[in-house]
Amino acid sequence: MSADIGVTGLAVMGANLARNLARNGYTVALHNRSVARTDSLLNSYGHEGNFVRTESLAELVQSLERPRRVLIMVKAGAPVDAVIDELLPLLEEGDIIIDAGNSFYEETRRREAALREKGLHFVGVGVSGGEEGALNGPSIMPGGSRESYQALGPMLEKIAAEYHGEPCCAWVGTDGAGHYVKMVHNGIEYADMQVIGEAYDLMRSLAGLEPAQQAGVFREWNTTDLASYLIEITSAVLEQEDELTGRPLVDVIVDSAGQKGTGRWTAISGLEVGSPVTTIAESVFARSISSQRELRAETSQAFSAGINGVVSAEELYSEQDAQQDFVEDVRKALYASKLVSYAQGFDMLTAAGSEFGWELDLRTIASLWRAGCIIRADLLDTIMKAYEVPDERPKNLLLAPAFTEALNECLPAWRRVVAAAATYGVPAPVFSSSLAYYDSLRRDRLPASLTQGLRDYFGAHTYERVDKPGTFHTRWSEDRSEMEM
Amino acid sequence: MSADIGVTGLAVMGANLARNLARNGYTVALHNRSVARTDSLLNSYGHEGNFVRTESLAELVQSLERPRRVLIMVKAGAPVDAVIDELLPLLEEGDIIIDAGNSFYEETRRREAALREKGLHFVGVGVSGGEEGALNGPSIMPGGSRESYQALGPMLEKIAAEYHGEPCCAWVGTDGAGHYVKMVHNGIEYADMQVIGEAYDLMRSLAGLEPAQQAGVFREWNTTDLASYLIEITSAVLEQEDELTGRPLVDVIVDSAGQKGTGRWTAISGLEVGSPVTTIAESVFARSISSQRELRAETSQAFSAGINGVVSAEELYSEQDAQQDFVEDVRKALYASKLVSYAQGFDMLTAAGSEFGWELDLRTIASLWRAGCIIRADLLDTIMKAYEVPDERPKNLLLAPAFTEALNECLPAWRRVVAAAATYGVPAPVFSSSLAYYDSLRRDRLPASLTQGLRDYFGAHTYERVDKPGTFHTRWSEDRSEMEM
Repeated sequence: MSADIGVTGLAVMGANLARNLARNGYTVALHNRSVARTDSLLNSYGHEGNFVRTESLAELVQSLERPRRVLIMVKAGAPVDAVIDELLPLLEEGDIIIDAGNSFYEETRRREAALREKGLHFVGVGVSGGEEGALNGPSIMPGGSRESYQALGPMLEKIAAEYHGEPCCAWVGTDGAGHYVKMVHNGIEYADMQVIGEAYDLMRSLAGLEPAQQAGVFREWNTTDLASYLIEITSAVLEQEDELTGRPLVDVIVDSAGQKGTGRWTAISGLEVGSPVTTIAESVFARSISSQRELRAETSQAFSAGINGVVSAEELYSEQDAQQDFVEDVRKALYASKLVSYAQGFDMLTAAGSEFGWELDLRTIASLWRAGCIIRADLLDTIMKAYEVPDERPKNLLLAPAFTEALNECLPAWRRVVAAAATYGVPAPVFSSSLAYYDSLRRDRLPASLTQGLRDYFGAHTYERVDKPGTFHTRWSEDRSEMEM
Repeated sequence: MSADIGVTGLAVMGANLARNLARNGYTVALHNRSVARTDSLLNSYGHEGNFVRTESLAELVQSLERPRRVLIMVKAGAPVDAVIDELLPLLEEGDIIIDAGNSFYEETRRREAALREKGLHFVGVGVSGGEEGALNGPSIMPGGSRESYQALGPMLEKIAAEYHGEPCCAWVGTDGAGHYVKMVHNGIEYADMQVIGEAYDLMRSLAGLEPAQQAGVFREWNTTDLASYLIEITSAVLEQEDELTGRPLVDVIVDSAGQKGTGRWTAISGLEVGSPVTTIAESVFARSISSQRELRAETSQAFSAGINGVVSAEELYSEQDAQQDFVEDVRKALYASKLVSYAQGFDMLTAAGSEFGWELDLRTIASLWRAGCIIRADLLDTIMKAYEVPDERPKNLLLAPAFTEALNECLPAWRRVVAAAATYGVPAPVFSSSLAYYDSLRRDRLPASLTQGLRDYFGAHTYERVDKPGTFHTRWSEDRSEMEM
């Protein structure tokens, strides 16, 4: 029996994608470095569909229909290159290698170019949704050539998550575009979690709302504009009681979150393409700070609470009415910050598209994130609508009418919350950074003119004038007259 | 006559360094791709010292005493490699190539390793101070081998800026350390300029202080803890009247500042080494936003001022007393933000030292920035004192007693200013981000525990517990019991 697709690398993600393919009627050839894992998969789930057991990559390749489709699901980095090197002599022109791992988009670009020269298709595919998604329908973001998508697309669309009948899978762009879009998804995910954390911290520190109470707040919020998977599971995490101590689980978990990987890459790429993704960068940095536990322990001693106008145990908004108002303010601040963070993420996609020559369709990208992935949220429908009419696509999502209206409605609350955070000493780096971004964009004049003046003073970097074209320099150390360069 | 050092690349920076060397008694061999430039330098400044005119790199190398010292001052990137390739066959074991340009530290690391294998020393030198500094005494940050510093150090120390008789030049660490330290200097410079811009904008937007009045404010500030070159020249730039229009020059300069180069590299490296340099990243992003002029023009229309609780033309702090208090508040906010930005910069140096195996002496680095460079400021003396006693060096500068005290003193004002910026819609991304950093570090608990809970929920990423060692996972989709991994 010849197989439709081969999967190599059968750890949980690979195994679940293979099962998902088989459950959808495809014949799937299986390969893993240690055959035991292949057999274990077959023993437990062999009945789910048609599998072909193989013991080597050569055998895997032999078992495939042409053009051959080989999906690699191994650790990003050198292991991917190792598998590709092993596959190369086994494949023929027109065959397709699919990297469904979390590879860095620059590596995908390099691999795609190298394999294209050899007549092979290399498709970097972003897959979001974790183990669960891989099995039951992830959000799938494939890059690579358009041609490869013809052979591969229908298969991927079939195993993808569905949103009201539409698959959350579509070709996003050439070479590394798929992995890039997945990376930005993860960067936005960092920001989504950070703003939830800030909301939680503010409600607890300033209004005395315990985790169990907040579980109800987040459940309620999940019926508003904020409706999303992450808000939903925040409620579940906050209501969880630690079985050992009886305390809220969230108080027992160590408060250090790592920042290696895709979140960091997103912030770096934002810097590189010149797109100001402040919310994502601040979220990555917030994780770095959380990891500096020893330093924080020492600092919290040196800068003791209760002095310097910061909040003490006695909460500010603990009166019933004040509490309700504050909670609603925080909800609006969260939503506004989230809107900014998505606007920044899509701005970054626009900049990256120009940089790398991808014709990214932002409406399509929003559509892929509506189901299957971690950031799935009602907001993505709003974003799709913003990009509905091709000729009226906003330069930046903040200019989409739905965004403008929502921000206008949230703005007074957002300002109050950021001011309260600053006044009472609760860190809210993304709430405040997103507000600063908003206030910067709406400024027709920024103090960057002073920066330019200073740079001209100390480094003769020159400046432009608002009233005529050209490049100018003031002779600062001489008679301070202006010269055109 | 044999020369002490050769300089190739005689654009302004190279020419000025060559003149500086000659004025200090060294015999300097000169080379430039086009000989005309060499001759022009000799015609104008040949009388300043002993120069050797050469027409080729071979001639340049022949003219040098051994070990030969060849200083390259060409555009960073490929041109540096081109000159090195041309020099290689001409040099002998023990000779020294010096790259005094703004090279990326990773390139310096690569070049140093490649040349070390060939028995040559490669010294990446950070030079700050612009054209003026290069001629009269820059701040010099040399990397490379300790051995090379023995042959090169005395010469560099002689041409460096002096601070109370001490040269602003010292060996900072192996391979790329010199260029890295220079890069961080520039990152801090970005933040220094950004906080000055935020102060200026706040005083103008909320207290109605015109540029000419602010020139006086900054002159006054230059007699306080803030005393520094950048504060000094801010006063000069703000008092400048445009000769064409009679308006303040700062109102005539286009408000877009670029962000390519060392500032961006610094933010990226902070992300890579896991050091939260929020002030530097926000400063780089602020420049990106300033460059999006078209978008800002459109956004300022969509989100018109005067509504949504943002400040109108009628200034809030225009009453004499209120104005004075606000100005003093802003001064303190600026100083506190600056303290945080330096603490972050030095934290980054610590992290990079571990990452790259450099034994960076932070006290020495602070000492190099006291004169000759753009960020020279009284604060660097304070930083040196913080690192005075080797056994008592603070983990982070915020923990140095002088920093702790200064922050305590500034804190209420800092909070008021950040709250006012948020309330009245003046963007102050670094003022607020630095405050959030401070408030995060002083927290013994951060909401990162919730982030970890969420990550365990959707991705089985596991978490640690505060009360016992190990790695744990809650079976969220099953009975929600906890298992040890």
